Amino acid sequence: MGRTGLWLVGARGSVATTAVCGLLGLRAGLVPPTGCVTELLDADLPPWDSLVVGGHDVVSTPLVKRAEQLARAGVVPAELLGPVSAGLREVQANLRDVPQGAQVEVAARLVADLASFRSRHDLERVVVVNVASTEPPVDPHPAHASAAALEKALAVGETVLPPSSLAAYAAFKAGCSFVDFTPSTGVALPALAELAAVVGVPYAGRDGKTGETLVRTVLAPMFTARALRVRSWAGTNLLGGGDGSTLEDPAHASSKLRTKASGLSALLGHPVTAPLHIDNVPELGEQKTAWDHVLFEGFLGARMTLQFTWTGLDSALAAPLVLDLARLLAAAHRAGRVGVQGELGFFFKDPLGSTEHGFAEQTRVLAEWAGEL
Amino acid sequence: MGRTGLWLVGARGSVATTAVCGLLGLRAGLVPPTGCVTELLDADLPPWDSLVVGGHDVVSTPLVKRAEQLARAGVVPAELLGPVSAGLREVQANLRDVPQGAQVEVAARLVADLASFRSRHDLERVVVVNVASTEPPVDPHPAHASAAALEKALAVGETVLPPSSLAAYAAFKAGCSFVDFTPSTGVALPALAELAAVVGVPYAGRDGKTGETLVRTVLAPMFTARALRVRSWAGTNLLGGGDGSTLEDPAHASSKLRTKASGLSALLGHPVTAPLHIDNVPELGEQKTAWDHVLFEGFLGARMTLQFTWTGLDSALAAPLVLDLARLLAAAHRAGRVGVQGELGFFFKDPLGSTEHGFAEQTRVLAEWAGEL
Amino acid sequence: MGRTGLWLVGARGSVATTAVCGLLGLRAGLVPPTGCVTELLDADLPPWDSLVVGGHDVVSTPLVKRAEQLARAGVVPAELLGPVSAGLREVQANLRDVPQGAQVEVAARLVADLASFRSRHDLERVVVVNVASTEPPVDPHPAHASAAALEKALAVGETVLPPSSLAAYAAFKAGCSFVDFTPSTGVALPALAELAAVVGVPYAGRDGKTGETLVRTVLAPMFTARALRVRSWAGTNLLGGGDGSTLEDPAHASSKLRTKASGLSALLGHPVTAPLHIDNVPELGEQKTAWDHVLFEGFLGARMTLQFTWTGLDSALAAPLVLDLARLLAAAHRAGRVGVQGELGFFFKDPLGSTEHGFAEQTRVLAEWAGEL
Amino acid sequence: MGRTGLWLVGARGSVATTAVCGLLGLRAGLVPPTGCVTELLDADLPPWDSLVVGGHDVVSTPLVKRAEQLARAGVVPAELLGPVSAGLREVQANLRDVPQGAQVEVAARLVADLASFRSRHDLERVVVVNVASTEPPVDPHPAHASAAALEKALAVGETVLPPSSLAAYAAFKAGCSFVDFTPSTGVALPALAELAAVVGVPYAGRDGKTGETLVRTVLAPMFTARALRVRSWAGTNLLGGGDGSTLEDPAHASSKLRTKASGLSALLGHPVTAPLHIDNVPELGEQKTAWDHVLFEGFLGARMTLQFTWTGLDSALAAPLVLDLARLLAAAHRAGRVGVQGELGFFFKDPLGSTEHGFAEQTRVLAEWAGEL
Repeated sequence: MGRTGLWLVGARGSVATTAVCGLLGLRAGLVPPTGCVTELLDADLPPWDSLVVGGHDVVSTPLVKRAEQLARAGVVPAELLGPVSAGLREVQANLRDVPQGAQVEVAARLVADLASFRSRHDLERVVVVNVASTEPPVDPHPAHASAAALEKALAVGETVLPPSSLAAYAAFKAGCSFVDFTPSTGVALPALAELAAVVGVPYAGRDGKTGETLVRTVLAPMFTARALRVRSWAGTNLLGGGDGSTLEDPAHASSKLRTKASGLSALLGHPVTAPLHIDNVPELGEQKTAWDHVLFEGFLGARMTLQFTWTGLDSALAAPLVLDLARLLAAAHRAGRVGVQGELGFFFKDPLGSTEHGFAEQTRVLAEWAGEL
Repeated sequence: MGRTGLWLVGARGSVATTAVCGLLGLRAGLVPPTGCVTELLDADLPPWDSLVVGGHDVVSTPLVKRAEQLARAGVVPAELLGPVSAGLREVQANLRDVPQGAQVEVAARLVADLASFRSRHDLERVVVVNVASTEPPVDPHPAHASAAALEKALAVGETVLPPSSLAAYAAFKAGCSFVDFTPSTGVALPALAELAAVVGVPYAGRDGKTGETLVRTVLAPMFTARALRVRSWAGTNLLGGGDGSTLEDPAHASSKLRTKASGLSALLGHPVTAPLHIDNVPELGEQKTAWDHVLFEGFLGARMTLQFTWTGLDSALAAPLVLDLARLLAAAHRAGRVGVQGELGFFFKDPLGSTEHGFAEQTRVLAEWAGEL
Repeated sequence: MGRTGLWLVGARGSVATTAVCGLLGLRAGLVPPTGCVTELLDADLPPWDSLVVGGHDVVSTPLVKRAEQLARAGVVPAELLGPVSAGLREVQANLRDVPQGAQVEVAARLVADLASFRSRHDLERVVVVNVASTEPPVDPHPAHASAAALEKALAVGETVLPPSSLAAYAAFKAGCSFVDFTPSTGVALPALAELAAVVGVPYAGRDGKTGETLVRTVLAPMFTARALRVRSWAGTNLLGGGDGSTLEDPAHASSKLRTKASGLSALLGHPVTAPLHIDNVPELGEQKTAWDHVLFEGFLGARMTLQFTWTGLDSALAAPLVLDLARLLAAAHRAGRVGVQGELGFFFKDPLGSTEHGFAEQTRVLAEWAGEL
Repeated sequence: MGRTGLWLVGARGSVATTAVCGLLGLRAGLVPPTGCVTELLDADLPPWDSLVVGGHDVVSTPLVKRAEQLARAGVVPAELLGPVSAGLREVQANLRDVPQGAQVEVAARLVADLASFRSRHDLERVVVVNVASTEPPVDPHPAHASAAALEKALAVGETVLPPSSLAAYAAFKAGCSFVDFTPSTGVALPALAELAAVVGVPYAGRDGKTGETLVRTVLAPMFTARALRVRSWAGTNLLGGGDGSTLEDPAHASSKLRTKASGLSALLGHPVTAPLHIDNVPELGEQKTAWDHVLFEGFLGARMTLQFTWTGLDSALAAPLVLDLARLLAAAHRAGRVGVQGELGFFFKDPLGSTEHGFAEQTRVLAEWAGEL
């Protein structure tokens, strides 16, 4: 296999910067691949040093400066900054501004950026991964229904797609596979699913499962396997960072809350009282703390509880999964897989192409799928 | 299938009394089978109303009185006491004192009690389940090494077995299957494994997985599947009830702590700092509270934590599993299964005959095994 | 001192019913005065058996039935139901429906009910305590500004007061002291303060401090005394019962959240990020669980956290304080105290007549005040 | 007031090094006095830049290296290392090895070191603060009973004092005041109390109250003030750092556990089931996590719980208190106070010279005492 491109939408964000720092550290043998799931898989995947990173972003803070900020926040080790600085500058040379204008023009420019990235670095293929800020949910539009309707609307200069979906559109038009790591609309429109099929590229999503939801999809199957009846499952998330301030806006939060909640009833097999909050606590920096309270009923109606508190660094949890997904989608693309890859539900809160939310089963399915690539 | 006997060793304890109250409630249609795992299995198992209960105990408190105590402790619903009182008296008629004397004589008497129970109620088979108080660990003895050595030692009047192992011995001699729901030595001696094979009966154990360890065997595989490195896993258990005061004695606690800890390193694939405590807090009554603190490392060395607090009623968690195991062992016996049934590791902290501790995998194995009976 | 009346507004609610059951149990010597603060004070207060209970409510469920419900919910011991049933029926004979009609007429009827209660039982004085459901915040109205404006608006048939304030108005008109144990508007209007002064009665409020806020007003002074800087203080409350469903309505919740938050900045001496939620989880029954997460900064900018989980039975916490307040207001009334009694801030989330929120200081002030009665 | 010496016993430990870095940062105006209680007091105390630091230690790691270790552990900000390095070297010039030999000779050498420090820097007085590792409890010895007996035993070459007590002895002989910030025996011997009185110097102790116990002494008075009956109070402490490994040894831990537990019953006014553990979890580094579970009873026997988890950096909590105590003891010495200063109980788990454990009351007493200096 030749070299593989990883194109990050939101390339200067915390997750993207952490992923790039980590990739450079892995290549230099300076950090172990902790948190990298692909290292556990028996599969033929692109090696770390075959990955070339580029991307788009709406901001233009230098990557080195972003890395320094993440070092102060405790996400990137301070001693890694020196060794990776040259590599960060190389990646930065591959970053492009998000173009402005009519959506049809923006899309053309995004496609051109991807094509140029691929040819400039002689890449066999490029995986586009959306790690940009969460968008508010989007209103339905007739142009979302089919590839034809979408092309037509764009052709007449209409603005019909949110940025995340435009990124997916451009990825497909450029012959790239696509991963949506956010709860934004992204690829989750019939028109885009159709386009991926036509172009013949695989895609996966959505909303990286990195913290509270990960634990939920592990614990909920425990209750069902033991025939214990969950009566309520409440959750509170405290988060700072960019994510916290984005989600302070209720419109943006609703995307996140919706995908967070979707799996719980599915896992339990019945509806459940499940209040869920996301609070912006800027003082927490990159740290995220979630508290969950589960009330469950056992034999003879016994009322019992399980509480957990998860304290994680979200970017440190997400970044290795972004690298994993780049490797996996590249291998899937090479193997001729087309359309939604539901077998990657392991990575997502809202697994496109799958109704399985249980983590253990997702783990089994992933290993099998990867082994067959 | 005709009727099946369930012979409880420790028949007047909290777990046994809760199991009996629950079984009577289930039969009368007064309580749902919450917590009964066998209700989820696609398997041919003895129905609830084919189970006849008897047992041994060293105390002689009337079952009705024990049920009243458990109602005050919030384990048995007060409104169930009336409807089950007749049934409790019937079960009580099947209870026998634990005999005294040389072990060979005690064993003969236990065998006779089992045979009499079987013939008196015209039972197809009897499953003996040990739910007596936890014993201290036992010193090795040459008589434990083989059935022949054991028989010989007993024959000359030696005392070589702890009570839990003598109960298993008697069960096998009486042609009964055996379940060890406690961390006591029980059936875990080569001599007894050999005896079970000779007699042709199945057995399973050990130490019911009802609380903290259940959660641990669900969470630990999450960390490994995500390539996150657990650095420490500390636990504290506060418990009242009989269990709390038994485990206050460090000798008894060591059995429990050993089986609790055994699975963690196996699940994580490496040793881990894992201090673990059991404290007797009589004021908690039947309630058990466990706090676990997990420190784990992610990408770029990020330090993160997961804490959980489990607050359960131990008897309410254990009792339905005791009933489940009675049904499952009866079916296994009928199906001709002989020796240790490692596929029942789902139920145990220290699964005899299996090295698998991961709960999801245990769940899968159980379903498959039960489906084949 | 002769007999003292305790008139409960919301007399069939959980708090009121628990208070009455407890008072009857105390009188009969069946329960200890756990949770009764007045038992710790060195003060001349009306003894338990001099209290006569009556009240208003909008519902008419028999008190005996309410007590049974609370026994099932684990608030009232089942064994107390028998001994207190006669007493509950006596109290019930003193309960009156809340009258309907123009506010001036309703007020007259409430005054008459109070007067009749006082004369019928030959009471020296009556303390009215509001324990009714939380109301939404009320819009300002010119009639709230002075006793004269209020009397005038009522006289012409206007509806200008929320029910809680009308209850306070009627109490004062009947010469009774008043306690607002809820976050409703109640007595917190200039017109009513003026009226209390004119009539010459004491009053106190507002919003009983029984759980999360109690702990907060104990912990916050610890941080300030140690010069540790609290950076954020997040809270989540899960509650069932009537309170939970009332507070599900955001309009009602806002009263509660406002009084909960008011003290935190005052205690810390600076504003703080402090998201706060109240969730209705009916499955919790009478139980209330709160989780708080405090991020604080120490020497050299060290970031540290304190989390707590409080699991309480709200009615069991509130009821003895209601009895305490009845005794204290009666004694204050007898001693000639008039107007707001800020020294009772110990009992309240939103202490009327005081800016002191620190619990230790409130405890000291209460003891001093009570000693002087 | 002229300059004041602060002589640290255990001068290269985490607490001492953090205190020194912080003092240098405070003087340079680079860090705010967060966590410094003396900044809140209205008292005439030595200013930060009048403090000169020296000390003894059994190890000889350079202070600059210790500061770098603490920066990696997240206790000292990395950006502070440069600005304080010159100051650290100055302090290091004042550090001395702990001498070896007969105790009488060691004491003489310690006294000489203190005297030399005082004269070399022209100090008005010196405060000796013990922040060395916790010692195991010491066996009683007749020489502990009086100053005369002690002097006699030392004179004949006997070894009768643990190192912490020898440090206190030397401090007094050199005319210095003494603070015991550890649970070691230190000054808590009649012979030493007598010596302090003879010499005319003040002292205080013992065992800095920085985490779990601080919270306990704040919460316990809440329960008593509300007449709620605490039924059990269990605690688990996870700690790394030097403290963790010292306390792994049960003999050392017993000192710590004893002082931790001593206040709880005193605060509650009755004995309580209170299991308490200290676990060494080296992976936690400088972080300390404590979990407490309080079971309490309210009105009508309601069972309720409060749990808390404290996650602190112990050195960051202790260091400013060490600086505070140096200022306070210096001022007390100047003001002619002699003997134990029980009014400093605010700072200690095991307050010498006081039976008051309640934090709010201790806060009040401290402010009053400091105001009178």
